[in-house]
Amino acid sequence: MALNKQPYRGTRDFFPKDKRVRDYLFSVMTKTAESFGYESYDGPLLEEVELYKAKSGEELINEQIYSFTDRGERFVAIRPEMTPTVARMVSQIHRESSKPLRWFSIPNLMRYEKPQRGRVREHWQFNCDVFGAPGRLGEMEILQIAVELFQNYGANCSHFEILLNDRAIVDTVFKLMMKATEEQTYRLYKIVDKAKKITKEALEKMVGEVGLSKDSENIFYSYLQLNSFADVVSFLTTNGHGGISEAFNNFITLTEKAHINEYLKYDPTIVRGLDYYTGIVFEIFDKHPDNRRALCGGGAFANLLQIFNEEPLAGVGLGLGDVTLRDFLEVHNLLPNFDIPKNDVLITFQEDDGLVAALILAQSMRKNNLKIVTSLEALKFKKVFPIAEKKGVRFVTLMGSEELAKNQIQLKNLNTKEQHTLDLNDLEAILKIIKA
Amino acid sequence: MALNKQPYRGTRDFFPKDKRVRDYLFSVMTKTAESFGYESYDGPLLEEVELYKAKSGEELINEQIYSFTDRGERFVAIRPEMTPTVARMVSQIHRESSKPLRWFSIPNLMRYEKPQRGRVREHWQFNCDVFGAPGRLGEMEILQIAVELFQNYGANCSHFEILLNDRAIVDTVFKLMMKATEEQTYRLYKIVDKAKKITKEALEKMVGEVGLSKDSENIFYSYLQLNSFADVVSFLTTNGHGGISEAFNNFITLTEKAHINEYLKYDPTIVRGLDYYTGIVFEIFDKHPDNRRALCGGGAFANLLQIFNEEPLAGVGLGLGDVTLRDFLEVHNLLPNFDIPKNDVLITFQEDDGLVAALILAQSMRKNNLKIVTSLEALKFKKVFPIAEKKGVRFVTLMGSEELAKNQIQLKNLNTKEQHTLDLNDLEAILKIIKA
Repeated sequence: MALNKQPYRGTRDFFPKDKRVRDYLFSVMTKTAESFGYESYDGPLLEEVELYKAKSGEELINEQIYSFTDRGERFVAIRPEMTPTVARMVSQIHRESSKPLRWFSIPNLMRYEKPQRGRVREHWQFNCDVFGAPGRLGEMEILQIAVELFQNYGANCSHFEILLNDRAIVDTVFKLMMKATEEQTYRLYKIVDKAKKITKEALEKMVGEVGLSKDSENIFYSYLQLNSFADVVSFLTTNGHGGISEAFNNFITLTEKAHINEYLKYDPTIVRGLDYYTGIVFEIFDKHPDNRRALCGGGAFANLLQIFNEEPLAGVGLGLGDVTLRDFLEVHNLLPNFDIPKNDVLITFQEDDGLVAALILAQSMRKNNLKIVTSLEALKFKKVFPIAEKKGVRFVTLMGSEELAKNQIQLKNLNTKEQHTLDLNDLEAILKIIKA
Repeated sequence: MALNKQPYRGTRDFFPKDKRVRDYLFSVMTKTAESFGYESYDGPLLEEVELYKAKSGEELINEQIYSFTDRGERFVAIRPEMTPTVARMVSQIHRESSKPLRWFSIPNLMRYEKPQRGRVREHWQFNCDVFGAPGRLGEMEILQIAVELFQNYGANCSHFEILLNDRAIVDTVFKLMMKATEEQTYRLYKIVDKAKKITKEALEKMVGEVGLSKDSENIFYSYLQLNSFADVVSFLTTNGHGGISEAFNNFITLTEKAHINEYLKYDPTIVRGLDYYTGIVFEIFDKHPDNRRALCGGGAFANLLQIFNEEPLAGVGLGLGDVTLRDFLEVHNLLPNFDIPKNDVLITFQEDDGLVAALILAQSMRKNNLKIVTSLEALKFKKVFPIAEKKGVRFVTLMGSEELAKNQIQLKNLNTKEQHTLDLNDLEAILKIIKA
């Protein structure tokens, strides 16, 4: 029986055209991160499952992880995310490193998902983290990176927005203002996470089951109405939490000075699950009505190294997947066309005995940093140009019997249609035209 | 209990310095492949185990593969090699594609190995394949790529050699000259594979057990003595196989004309196992006495698409792992130093209220394609230069109280030690000096 030609469910074959798109996505990520002085790192494809158990929610471990026992009885998983790995790596070296540490990576990750639009089993994720930045400047820098990244893809505030919250504010509202217990706070986080997706009745039913006082419930509903940075600042100040209000206001003022505030919008429902965040949390949303979804998420955390018995080290990070990013760029017509590769010269010969001359010409051109496609057999003149087009070359060389007899080539510029007859051995003259 | 900080056995953490080395290795692979017009592709991390069973030897499947059953009862494996994936992908599109198809990739692969020098569980492998090239020109081109790749790392024929054989020759010797049956041929391949590693006595014992005639045994020993292209050509001609001898001789003549023959050496023991090869087979060997090992292997194959019920499509490929390559470059002192990153400017301020000016200056510089490291807190003058050195910048900017009062910066070139006092808002003047 013949084998299946299709890739494993939820994974993708990257044929050259798709690979060029991916390379473009990654090159903009790399360029942006490096423009902020971030250094590239990578970790292993497999980690011990203990690492994810210590850091992540149970859902991820139980249902979404690719885990198995290796031949040495180690219980391992294909990495579903990069944060535990970067925490493990930072825990090895942070004592001797000068701060802040600025790192980025673009690993392939696997989650056992039900494949659907924007969701696959294998994807790549841009991860950018800063560790040990003073005050709130790490939070500031990660937001700047997010904005510049999208700008570098050609997007602006008509295309995306950053919905922002601060876990310190959420904790203040729940624990201090509403006097919620640990267990009630846990349930409130779950409710907030869902608040936008459910009806008013369902929301009220869930809130009623938490067992809060009527006053606390009212505070909760007021909180969910907060709609701007001014709103939340005045809400906190009015309720006697001027300290945290001022700290947040100072942060927002700084984002104005750095010209990124036009992308930012306060959103009380952004909490990033029950995760390890302790400071700002954010999600970047596509504004296009056909693709209204989160593209990127991140936030600030204080205790990620705790699981390695290391001192607290403040960090801020973001993660951006390649699938949702590509959908975003496509829906806004921001993705350049990568149908055709980019090469410099197609070298052809029209008589069989031109082969060796063609091979040698190709070799000397490659030594001069040109991308050369060599025809490996004699090509009729009329076949040359369709191939040249498919290969995306700027020039073709031709060698018919006349040229071969005189040791010459025809060099044709496909944009200008200019054609030169040149000595086959006069590499300098040939290169001068190609590199002009 | 605190978690383990070390990576999973046989895998590597790529801290920024190691990641820069890896990026360099990959960039030379990419540059070389693209200089031949090869297009980058990638496939999934997981494939169904059936795919490897159909193509590879049993040892790989039984002992060396990371396989497991997924939650949907599919028996899958983390890719241990790329060839089955590329064959699967080519089988989908080869009918509509113009030939030759020239593809390359640099995937991460996993094998369950006992970690030792040059051998790890997760490694990256440069794969380069050409499909549907006429005659022997695919074999020629893959050898050219191998040579140019190593030359692009700065290596020459004092550093490496390519040991070459032709499976068509081996088959002629075993099946036609020695009259070996299929089963005897299978055993002879296994013996040849080991011939260099065992004693003369052990070799003779193994050959004796194959059950060949004395004449055939003698032919076998004469074959193992062949030591040059001239040797093998005359051996075949003398024994009445002038056709295959001439074809091989023509191929070698072509490698001379393309200036790659100085790297090539005939070796009768190179057969690349029992694999799917049908034409030339080769291994690139390090010539350094401390690292005498194979760095890269490849060859020509005819029937890789058969397992998908597709017509035969001739292919030639090579594979080169990152671990042995790095060892090779290090032992020959060919690896550049990547201890320090490369950045353009370190932006500093010496008084707290310089922060906003620094953030804005950094932002405008990044828009001009510069790699900017921003200090996020006031830095004393004497602390600036040690940090500048660690970050590998070419320039630093300084803003003390005097500069802040006048809205100026000091821009210092760390190579020439030249220092300019410039208006903070005169970006053009600043960029002119940095980009000079």
